[in-house]
Amino acid sequence: MATLGLIEYDAASPEVRAVYDDIMTTRKTDYINNFWKALAHDPVTLKRTWASIKEIMAPGALDALTKELIYLAVSTTNQCGYCIASHTAAARKAGMTDQMFAELQAVTGMANESNRLASGWQVEIDDRFKT
Amino acid sequence: MATLGLIEYDAASPEVRAVYDDIMTTRKTDYINNFWKALAHDPVTLKRTWASIKEIMAPGALDALTKELIYLAVSTTNQCGYCIASHTAAARKAGMTDQMFAELQAVTGMANESNRLASGWQVEIDDRFKT
Amino acid sequence: MATLGLIEYDAASPEVRAVYDDIMTTRKTDYINNFWKALAHDPVTLKRTWASIKEIMAPGALDALTKELIYLAVSTTNQCGYCIASHTAAARKAGMTDQMFAELQAVTGMANESNRLASGWQVEIDDRFKT
Amino acid sequence: MATLGLIEYDAASPEVRAVYDDIMTTRKTDYINNFWKALAHDPVTLKRTWASIKEIMAPGALDALTKELIYLAVSTTNQCGYCIASHTAAARKAGMTDQMFAELQAVTGMANESNRLASGWQVEIDDRFKT
Amino acid sequence: MATLGLIEYDAASPEVRAVYDDIMTTRKTDYINNFWKALAHDPVTLKRTWASIKEIMAPGALDALTKELIYLAVSTTNQCGYCIASHTAAARKAGMTDQMFAELQAVTGMANESNRLASGWQVEIDDRFKT
Amino acid sequence: MATLGLIEYDAASPEVRAVYDDIMTTRKTDYINNFWKALAHDPVTLKRTWASIKEIMAPGALDALTKELIYLAVSTTNQCGYCIASHTAAARKAGMTDQMFAELQAVTGMANESNRLASGWQVEIDDRFKT
Repeated sequence: MATLGLIEYDAASPEVRAVYDDIMTTRKTDYINNFWKALAHDPVTLKRTWASIKEIMAPGALDALTKELIYLAVSTTNQCGYCIASHTAAARKAGMTDQMFAELQAVTGMANESNRLASGWQVEIDDRFKT
Repeated sequence: MATLGLIEYDAASPEVRAVYDDIMTTRKTDYINNFWKALAHDPVTLKRTWASIKEIMAPGALDALTKELIYLAVSTTNQCGYCIASHTAAARKAGMTDQMFAELQAVTGMANESNRLASGWQVEIDDRFKT
Repeated sequence: MATLGLIEYDAASPEVRAVYDDIMTTRKTDYINNFWKALAHDPVTLKRTWASIKEIMAPGALDALTKELIYLAVSTTNQCGYCIASHTAAARKAGMTDQMFAELQAVTGMANESNRLASGWQVEIDDRFKT
Repeated sequence: MATLGLIEYDAASPEVRAVYDDIMTTRKTDYINNFWKALAHDPVTLKRTWASIKEIMAPGALDALTKELIYLAVSTTNQCGYCIASHTAAARKAGMTDQMFAELQAVTGMANESNRLASGWQVEIDDRFKT
Repeated sequence: MATLGLIEYDAASPEVRAVYDDIMTTRKTDYINNFWKALAHDPVTLKRTWASIKEIMAPGALDALTKELIYLAVSTTNQCGYCIASHTAAARKAGMTDQMFAELQAVTGMANESNRLASGWQVEIDDRFKT
Repeated sequence: MATLGLIEYDAASPEVRAVYDDIMTTRKTDYINNFWKALAHDPVTLKRTWASIKEIMAPGALDALTKELIYLAVSTTNQCGYCIASHTAAARKAGMTDQMFAELQAVTGMANESNRLASGWQVEIDDRFKT
């Protein structure tokens, strides 16, 4: 169970409920996932984190699906079990197919490999890559 | 300098030159970056790594730009200096604008934050996210 | 279960018991947690690791609570499930309140985010920060 | 150099200047470090990141020094060169002595070691640590 | 359960079966572990990953046991639960004794500690270590 | 430069010199590398860290070369610049050839890749790998 437990909607303060409501409206769902229910014990962090994610994940120069794919690639690299599970679901909802998922994992795996080859072989940065 | 130094085209064996040639043809460039010149001391790894990257990064269900964005997000998460520099260049070549770059970094940063919040608060995976 | 299983006090050798005894005396507890019972299969590592932790975690220029908070922040960054669980307990015993826990997680999360922003944007170190 | 270069105060837009001004006022300094000057190319991220850090790092249940120590421990764990340099400076400004620095590094190092021992030996979480 | 489930031998396509057969022949076993059964949903990645691992893990300048030890040390550093479990089994099959396992973990733990001490204390590379 | 600078032999206290002497004797060299000269500002950590490394790296069930290879694999995975440089040198001194180095890097790279594939595909641990 989460360190301080989960706060369900019915037991939430008006401040927390306002965040829950905005999450449900923004995501067009009636479901609040555990991440938010755990953070709700710290309403300041809950509010700031949701506001940040809402701003960051809104479509911009990158569309919503691409952003979800990036989120999943990072979560996979960090090997965060909760995040891989929840963002696999989120990416699918945003349009990720099984084939996209497989290609995403392949790129993520390869990048993790070549990152170590570059570091382990102590490759110096090409002059043309220096900004 | 790279651990075993860099092998330039002129000094390369036919086996290594064949890989260099394929890199230049595939990427439509006459430039071989240091990563490959360092790995060239181990022709087996050079050949396998290039073949893998060529296969993985070819457009499929995900287009070339999306794959490069994922590669850069992973390299940023791992904080690999060489890889960030070289894949920022590669992503730009594939069409990444400054605004896309900024949004990519914002998503990558946020994912790294929320990964730790989920782990640190010991959030259990929602039943609906279990596959 | 731990790779080589756990060694309980009754089944432990005198060498291992001596470490267990010192842990219980130092920590004012009659409980040995699984970490030590697993390491006990390698008495040399058990003894050295306990001696190191005992020395490092003793109050000095930093008090015991601050040291536990740092330990938890590192464990959270590395996403070590066992360590997050055990050091959340240890930090609480040393005086960490729920509010301190929440603030610790917020700082840890933000640091993980800004570490990637600094690396991803390839920010060069300010001259004044060079020692 | 940073990927998109640094934006100095004189060349900054009013929006960016407002953030720079708030940083200088809050931190009682006339110096803006490179991190912010790099992020300034993305005013939305600049503004959100500063607002988050300002809120998170303000004294609360944990004092300012303790928060800086945690920030440095995380940056050290992630091995972010820029962040280690800048947060060593920030922690010193908040009161970190050389002895505190040394103890912080000792705890951080040990936590990184024991995290791997716990994972590598596959130690299961003690029932009493399950929340 | 794995994201897309596991593909058993009987349900596998001829392409996937060919990889399964080669794994069993090469490893002298009649068991295919879950890693491969999960990847089988992406036959291209399955085939490439197996071909790479087969080539990399074959005895060369380093023998099979040493390679398995390195694999386990990396998996422990990354704290990958699946990989620690499966490569502990693989290393044992290749000859790792309990004492070797314990020493491997001790070295891995210490390296993780000293890596942070070197980074946290901002130690510059000795001239003689520059290649 | 290291955060608190480097302490040369001539300027060292008797306590620090004793550690330096033991390092030089144990390693059969007249050179003290920067890592120790930086840590010397904290004699307690210097002494404990050296004693731990001396004990851990001594030949046992694993020989000295194998231990150095593991150390380098971990340092590469963590992408610690100082540690990769210094332990590449140490491993060579212990007998690592260029071919061994290349194979070590290949295994390290592949392990980093497959760690993410296992995590990203959410592969469950096989019953037979559960200890």
